[in-house]
Amino acid sequence: MPTDRSLDPIGVFDSGIGGLTVVAALQNLLPAENIFYIGDTARVPYGGKSRKTVERYSIEIGGLLLAERAKVIVVACNTASALAVPRMKDIFKVSVQGVVAPGAAAAVQNTKNKKVGVIGTRATMSSGAYEHAINGLDPEIQVFSVACPLLVPFIEEAMFDDKITDLMLARYLTPLLSNGIDTLVLGCTHYPLLRDAIARIAGPDVTLVDSAQNCALAVKSLLDSAGLSAPSERLGRLDVALTDATEGFLRTAARALELEIGEVSLRSVQSTQES
Amino acid sequence: MPTDRSLDPIGVFDSGIGGLTVVAALQNLLPAENIFYIGDTARVPYGGKSRKTVERYSIEIGGLLLAERAKVIVVACNTASALAVPRMKDIFKVSVQGVVAPGAAAAVQNTKNKKVGVIGTRATMSSGAYEHAINGLDPEIQVFSVACPLLVPFIEEAMFDDKITDLMLARYLTPLLSNGIDTLVLGCTHYPLLRDAIARIAGPDVTLVDSAQNCALAVKSLLDSAGLSAPSERLGRLDVALTDATEGFLRTAARALELEIGEVSLRSVQSTQES
Repeated sequence: MPTDRSLDPIGVFDSGIGGLTVVAALQNLLPAENIFYIGDTARVPYGGKSRKTVERYSIEIGGLLLAERAKVIVVACNTASALAVPRMKDIFKVSVQGVVAPGAAAAVQNTKNKKVGVIGTRATMSSGAYEHAINGLDPEIQVFSVACPLLVPFIEEAMFDDKITDLMLARYLTPLLSNGIDTLVLGCTHYPLLRDAIARIAGPDVTLVDSAQNCALAVKSLLDSAGLSAPSERLGRLDVALTDATEGFLRTAARALELEIGEVSLRSVQSTQES
Repeated sequence: MPTDRSLDPIGVFDSGIGGLTVVAALQNLLPAENIFYIGDTARVPYGGKSRKTVERYSIEIGGLLLAERAKVIVVACNTASALAVPRMKDIFKVSVQGVVAPGAAAAVQNTKNKKVGVIGTRATMSSGAYEHAINGLDPEIQVFSVACPLLVPFIEEAMFDDKITDLMLARYLTPLLSNGIDTLVLGCTHYPLLRDAIARIAGPDVTLVDSAQNCALAVKSLLDSAGLSAPSERLGRLDVALTDATEGFLRTAARALELEIGEVSLRSVQSTQES
């Protein structure tokens, strides 16, 4: 008889702290589950780095989550989802759930005029992962994407309600809005923290969709079908590990998302990149 | 008789590409020297990371420079200079030259009213390295410092002449200007690329000083006194290695600084961080 793994944690990781938006959605939908979150703050950000490096970092952090007995791995980082999930699925036996597919599905469900905008890091945008996922579901949808490399720095400075952020957003979003999109995918797990500002600039005719809610639903379905769901009468806990001891933004994000964090610890990272 | 090391390269490193401003100053002053530059682009930026992590990364990149037979190591990154140079000097036999001491000396030479402003990354500013170095030379100088975490992202987006950059700069510099500084230290090797915009906002009464020129003079003096200078009739070459294959900003910076780069290669990084 197999060991009961239902009390083992859902393992979640991001290059930094943005993935806590996905944790908030998971806690909301699955309050009984334990969650172990790792932010790779020693090597943040992933968004400007190469596929090979992002794959290597993601596999390494995946290994750290397995060492915490993760029963499923949630890649709560769009860059890592776009670049590294296929390779992680090859390597790991547990299920690996990224955020690109859920975000793409949310956009396809929402759009009426079949014009969808996507914003994200440079690496996510140049991977074409969103176009591929959206057009895999509906080839008639036109996808317009813009890399927004400065939004993560603004968010990590907590510039949520700020004239300079609004100016930058207007610059990034103008080409998408001129193309008449009715749906905008927040293709980076940091961006929900900037949702109000993005909604202000995008205007009332554009629906913002993010992956967090759909990703949580996908995880629920994975756990249910594998018989791995935690008993519903309990209340799960959230533990966090970082690869560098820089807790400043962790506290900001946890406050903004009303997350209660248990233990915060440090983890080693060992990265070898071949030349 | 010792091996002649005069043709071995000057080893220079930065977390990314900003250190090329120091390379430009070195080439200008010491055209005969070979230079080997490493940008740790797989883990850029260092500016928000902890002392322990920055020390570890710096020692590791120092080792890679020694493997290239570096005859001196130039830490062309203010964060690494502020946090890691003492430890590097303990470990390595070759001379290690940072950029904080030369920048501090330039500020002390320049100020008339003994009010000096310093801008840099969050890690550099909170280390207090500039205050310490400046007051070590002249305890009467008042030092006002401001962390400017968004300037490196703006520079890496090549937003050199941009309304949004100017707005952000005005926000960062206003407290320094109200304190009546006559000298502003650009305490990050990226910032000389933004010198025009900074001068525009700071106005004609503030002199900008950076470490590059003084750092090059310090390296020249180190080499001369150790008998390690390259024969003057030759023309040195510049080779560059990156730890991640992201060459976009390398090309931008090299163009802006009119640098001719020889070979560009990749290097492995192996980083272990203790928990």
